Amino acid sequence: MKVIITKDYDEMSEVAAGYVIKYLSDFKRVNLAITAGKTPIGMYEKLVLLVKDKEYYNHVHYYNFDEIPFREKVNGVTMKNLDQLFFLPAHIHRENIHILDGSNYENYDEVIKQNGGLDLVVMGLGWDGHFCGNLPGTCTFNDKTHAVYSFQMKDFTERLAGEFDGDKTKVPDYYVTMGPKTIMQARELVVIVNGTHKAKIVKEAFFGPICEEIPASILQMHPNITLIMDQDAASEL
Amino acid sequence: MKVIITKDYDEMSEVAAGYVIKYLSDFKRVNLAITAGKTPIGMYEKLVLLVKDKEYYNHVHYYNFDEIPFREKVNGVTMKNLDQLFFLPAHIHRENIHILDGSNYENYDEVIKQNGGLDLVVMGLGWDGHFCGNLPGTCTFNDKTHAVYSFQMKDFTERLAGEFDGDKTKVPDYYVTMGPKTIMQARELVVIVNGTHKAKIVKEAFFGPICEEIPASILQMHPNITLIMDQDAASEL
Amino acid sequence: MKVIITKDYDEMSEVAAGYVIKYLSDFKRVNLAITAGKTPIGMYEKLVLLVKDKEYYNHVHYYNFDEIPFREKVNGVTMKNLDQLFFLPAHIHRENIHILDGSNYENYDEVIKQNGGLDLVVMGLGWDGHFCGNLPGTCTFNDKTHAVYSFQMKDFTERLAGEFDGDKTKVPDYYVTMGPKTIMQARELVVIVNGTHKAKIVKEAFFGPICEEIPASILQMHPNITLIMDQDAASEL
Amino acid sequence: MKVIITKDYDEMSEVAAGYVIKYLSDFKRVNLAITAGKTPIGMYEKLVLLVKDKEYYNHVHYYNFDEIPFREKVNGVTMKNLDQLFFLPAHIHRENIHILDGSNYENYDEVIKQNGGLDLVVMGLGWDGHFCGNLPGTCTFNDKTHAVYSFQMKDFTERLAGEFDGDKTKVPDYYVTMGPKTIMQARELVVIVNGTHKAKIVKEAFFGPICEEIPASILQMHPNITLIMDQDAASEL
Repeated sequence: MKVIITKDYDEMSEVAAGYVIKYLSDFKRVNLAITAGKTPIGMYEKLVLLVKDKEYYNHVHYYNFDEIPFREKVNGVTMKNLDQLFFLPAHIHRENIHILDGSNYENYDEVIKQNGGLDLVVMGLGWDGHFCGNLPGTCTFNDKTHAVYSFQMKDFTERLAGEFDGDKTKVPDYYVTMGPKTIMQARELVVIVNGTHKAKIVKEAFFGPICEEIPASILQMHPNITLIMDQDAASEL
Repeated sequence: MKVIITKDYDEMSEVAAGYVIKYLSDFKRVNLAITAGKTPIGMYEKLVLLVKDKEYYNHVHYYNFDEIPFREKVNGVTMKNLDQLFFLPAHIHRENIHILDGSNYENYDEVIKQNGGLDLVVMGLGWDGHFCGNLPGTCTFNDKTHAVYSFQMKDFTERLAGEFDGDKTKVPDYYVTMGPKTIMQARELVVIVNGTHKAKIVKEAFFGPICEEIPASILQMHPNITLIMDQDAASEL
Repeated sequence: MKVIITKDYDEMSEVAAGYVIKYLSDFKRVNLAITAGKTPIGMYEKLVLLVKDKEYYNHVHYYNFDEIPFREKVNGVTMKNLDQLFFLPAHIHRENIHILDGSNYENYDEVIKQNGGLDLVVMGLGWDGHFCGNLPGTCTFNDKTHAVYSFQMKDFTERLAGEFDGDKTKVPDYYVTMGPKTIMQARELVVIVNGTHKAKIVKEAFFGPICEEIPASILQMHPNITLIMDQDAASEL
Repeated sequence: MKVIITKDYDEMSEVAAGYVIKYLSDFKRVNLAITAGKTPIGMYEKLVLLVKDKEYYNHVHYYNFDEIPFREKVNGVTMKNLDQLFFLPAHIHRENIHILDGSNYENYDEVIKQNGGLDLVVMGLGWDGHFCGNLPGTCTFNDKTHAVYSFQMKDFTERLAGEFDGDKTKVPDYYVTMGPKTIMQARELVVIVNGTHKAKIVKEAFFGPICEEIPASILQMHPNITLIMDQDAASEL
């Protein structure tokens, strides 16, 4: 595990952007699974300008690694967010975006394999030690891409309501996510973390025991992972 | 995880030898950690002839991944065995052999890192789910190279006596081993298994839950691992 | 350039086989262009046994890099020879063999690119400094896969008659070959040479000036090439 | 050869910077040979901010690929320029800068090899088809790092005077440069070109015959080269 501590959020975003830029210069197709949410906003701001309308970066393919479907719709929260942050402003061709959703998750690890495997996954870290949609109590380390149902988590509706502006009636009864095994099969992993509110979980997940109660703890074991965090997130190390 | 099922032990040995041969043609230094014991005897028989006296394979460096020291001596069981099976008949230069023993284990992960990291580890699988010297109850997944003391395992002396022709008086009170984290940091892993007596543990370790009670179960999570076994070992899958 | 001098033809064949074996353990599709002729006979003898009926090596795809078509037929001398030496005895699936012939050479570099590029080319060296079908006077360094017509070489019929048991009436009026640029785009090159009759041209092609009169001289410039020769071929170095 | 045509100089600089950024995220030592001169000014402007004072980029080592020594001094024009453009403003540690000069050029290819080989070379293209200090008439394709003396070029003093503000009395009687073979052994090459005054030579060097009269024409043959140019430089293609 390579650990990079940056002075602030902007430097974290810049370094993380560098890990995506790395794959822009490849000669063959590359497959990147990238995160939605607040942590990567700065990273996407930097990337949009570099990637927008560059036809010579058409070898780069993008994957969302989880999705919370809107009720009675095909699309969901993650893709809506990724569209806003990156895909639409960067004018990424739709055929280069491989959408994971409720309709195709069961077969998704096989799709990834047939596409050549994931080259890079850029992830955040949840305050409870989750990564992607792998929340404590909902997964085991050897899960592949799978669905998580409301009955598996007692506060399912409460936790997901935040993704719908607090409106619990909009929360669906399941979401889908690449599992720990899916992610660990990728050739390179990057985890970005910022803020003092993440300091405790960073320490536990990346410098403590490996256990399914803290799903992200498994990421320590990847031979090619970089943890990029600002000084605040590193303050308990 | 790539799974290769061979028709017999000889084919298993041949395929495994191919994973070592792969690194003979490298242009830069390569670091291979290789296993002692009965399982690799056939593999070494094939490799000795290919490697013996070939000065053009001097870029290949070898590491033992565990050692049971002889009482009041520096050397131990593993290196004695590797010498017999491979290093001596293949005329490997001593400066290309990096011996892990009781005197240097505490700093060994750092030594490996400074040498460029392990490119390949070839391991067997114990009937109890151990790999290297990582036996159930003696390690956690994030252990690096470490010592295991007799007080950590209630049947320590009994289990190790086999390595000393059953003479319990010769069993030392500790051994050393690369830990799960050391091994998982390697760029490529190969596990070789043969025989019906390993069929049950193969299934549990590589196709069951990941848990520290079966240390080898963590190996499932490596992005670049090949499991090579004969039909007997695969008979419960 | 890595230079390996072996004590005899058998060792040359063994080392060369190792470069093919290397790609057997890959996790993704690999594309190998391999040579027909006398030089590789020993190499194929070793490879046939290793590869025959091994379904787990189905990720390996094979290409012939030149072809002399039989008159009024689709197939030709090179593929007939490769079938005898390797493809038939090793039971290689026909869908894993990508035949270059008179019908498809014009588009072949594009086909290779779409298939992911060549990972390895194993070639011999002609007494006149040719490699593949790139004979002095018939090509320039930046030629891609192309046809060579009888009018381009004054002794065309005489030189090719040997491929038809000396029967000049069977010699076609063209042949096809991957060009220097096609070969130089491959990720790794291996050249195998044996015998004192090759000693002079080895010296000129690999240790002398780079010039189109000795087409193989360009191979010196590849960043990832290994020259494997026996002591006889190395006798003038 | 990958060809990227950018709309202007700034975009060319940005894309080229991306090829350097790629190596910032490596886990092991990387060796980059980078160009002085006017073409890369924009690239260095972008890189300085990214690299400055980042201790976590200490695995990156830098090489100058040519040098015109000041008379009776050890240092020279290239290093002075690289210091101004990049090394000083980016606060690169001196121990990460490997200076090629008149005192060490004879052994330089061996030094590079011992350091692990060059991972990337970023070069410009001269109007006469030169790259690094490989000018027409002064080198052959298989030259390694070497010195070029004034007697080898009839307008030696005139051509180099520009590097000394036109003062011919300051021009030394030799300079040193990595040769075509040194550069072709690198794992990746990038050539950056801008402006209509380079349009003709771009066409000749990268889309015409390979000949020593246009030294850069050999670069076409590298399996891993990217040519990045603005629309002006591409205007004759």
